[in-house]
Amino acid sequence: MKTYFECIPCFIRQGLDAAKLITDDEKIQEEILRKTLTLASKMDLKQSPPEIGQKIHRIIRQVAKNDDPYLEIKQKYNSLALKMYPQLKQKIENSDNPLETAVRLAIAGNIIDYGVNSSVGKIKVKDTIDKSLTAPLDKKDLEQFKNSISSAEHILYLGDNAGEIVFDKLLLEQLPLEKITFVVKGSPTINDATMQDAATTGLTEIVEVIDNGSDAPGTILNDCSENFQQKFEKADLIIAKGQGNYETLSDVDKEIFFILKVKCPVIARHLNCEVGSSILKRKKLELVGK
Amino acid sequence: MKTYFECIPCFIRQGLDAAKLITDDEKIQEEILRKTLTLASKMDLKQSPPEIGQKIHRIIRQVAKNDDPYLEIKQKYNSLALKMYPQLKQKIENSDNPLETAVRLAIAGNIIDYGVNSSVGKIKVKDTIDKSLTAPLDKKDLEQFKNSISSAEHILYLGDNAGEIVFDKLLLEQLPLEKITFVVKGSPTINDATMQDAATTGLTEIVEVIDNGSDAPGTILNDCSENFQQKFEKADLIIAKGQGNYETLSDVDKEIFFILKVKCPVIARHLNCEVGSSILKRKKLELVGK
Repeated sequence: MKTYFECIPCFIRQGLDAAKLITDDEKIQEEILRKTLTLASKMDLKQSPPEIGQKIHRIIRQVAKNDDPYLEIKQKYNSLALKMYPQLKQKIENSDNPLETAVRLAIAGNIIDYGVNSSVGKIKVKDTIDKSLTAPLDKKDLEQFKNSISSAEHILYLGDNAGEIVFDKLLLEQLPLEKITFVVKGSPTINDATMQDAATTGLTEIVEVIDNGSDAPGTILNDCSENFQQKFEKADLIIAKGQGNYETLSDVDKEIFFILKVKCPVIARHLNCEVGSSILKRKKLELVGK
Repeated sequence: MKTYFECIPCFIRQGLDAAKLITDDEKIQEEILRKTLTLASKMDLKQSPPEIGQKIHRIIRQVAKNDDPYLEIKQKYNSLALKMYPQLKQKIENSDNPLETAVRLAIAGNIIDYGVNSSVGKIKVKDTIDKSLTAPLDKKDLEQFKNSISSAEHILYLGDNAGEIVFDKLLLEQLPLEKITFVVKGSPTINDATMQDAATTGLTEIVEVIDNGSDAPGTILNDCSENFQQKFEKADLIIAKGQGNYETLSDVDKEIFFILKVKCPVIARHLNCEVGSSILKRKKLELVGK
């Protein structure tokens, strides 16, 4: 997906929100803001939003002299989600359709996104869970999701954010774990989950976890490690969480299920839905020209 | 008032909204967007927001090769407001406190602001009128407003937007017109009222109207004509409509009544109120160091 004009004011706001979140020093905030504006003034709009986001958040880390400015936030949401885990696990087990409930919870967990939101909060997470459990969801895609998982041999589950990966864990536990490799980011970017978060939340104990070698808030294939690219190539099914993965992979010819909470009007328009929608969307392998 | 960091993403959004409003040509939209970003990356934050807005809207007019891109919008809202005028006039005349009702309507008219909003619409104007008639309003400042008008000899009424000036006309008709000079912008900027709008709406028939010689969406004194500056100096009471005039005059030592609808969080914080508040606020002449 290309970057739309409407993404630009949002990038500037994101840069400022991030600056305010990670430092009280107004000089540093101003430097981040000005550098973000300069970058945005020259950017190539054919890039996907996470390619621009990657550059902005590199600026933020460099100016703030902080390799992982969202570390505390990531820890906070891992911890919050782990506290909620037993109750949510129960909800899935007591449900008539555990897989569907787990998908709904995985979507709800995607609200913990410090790229789009500058704050989330416990109440918002709980509220999103409640809404997500009854929100409209494409039953056909859900059925196909089941079938695709059943027939796939190598599944790559691309994670998104810290905290959210505990919700992914709930979904993973409903899937054939032996077929699945879970993917985290190669190094910190916004509140995206890294290997550290996968370890903290116990994900590494239940499934193979690799990192993609990249610091983009999405999956920019040619920015990822060779190891990841080989796994991606080999996989016959991709489960991709969150807006960043949708933005970077929506044009990739592969069997992909996108699982996300729609958090901005540009994505809503692209997916032909409302902001706030719960999305499980299949992108079918097209084999065009192959 | 200085420009706050939070104003910057809003400026970029404003630039983009304006670009989309006045042309469908994506190349022109992109050029406006990039030039706005470059300008914002270098701006002096000690300037008030309208000083930056003035530069952005000069870029927009220059790139779009259009001296008055909001002409149609201004005509539309003049016409809409003129249609509402008889009914609103009746409302004032039937009211227990005609001056207060006229002030409330003048505040409501301030919603027609294409700087903050990229669209307003008839329904929003009507809704704002209804709310404004019962919204909390500082009674002490209202009483003082009456007294100041009664004791002043030379009153300058600084208008804001086209359409809105019909609402100003309703208030002017409750005031001693012989003491008042109404001020419009020197040339087009956003949908701010110019002499043409004052003529169209019949303002020039009831009160002296001058222009301030400037194309800023506010009143930047040293950017205004000498004639305006002399009038401003001589005036012993200023009535200043809208956010732009508040942003440019809130630090000027003068007896000023600001009349506005609060439309953004930065102004809300500065005025210690909520977005959407109706404001009649006195700034007392302090004579500090005089």
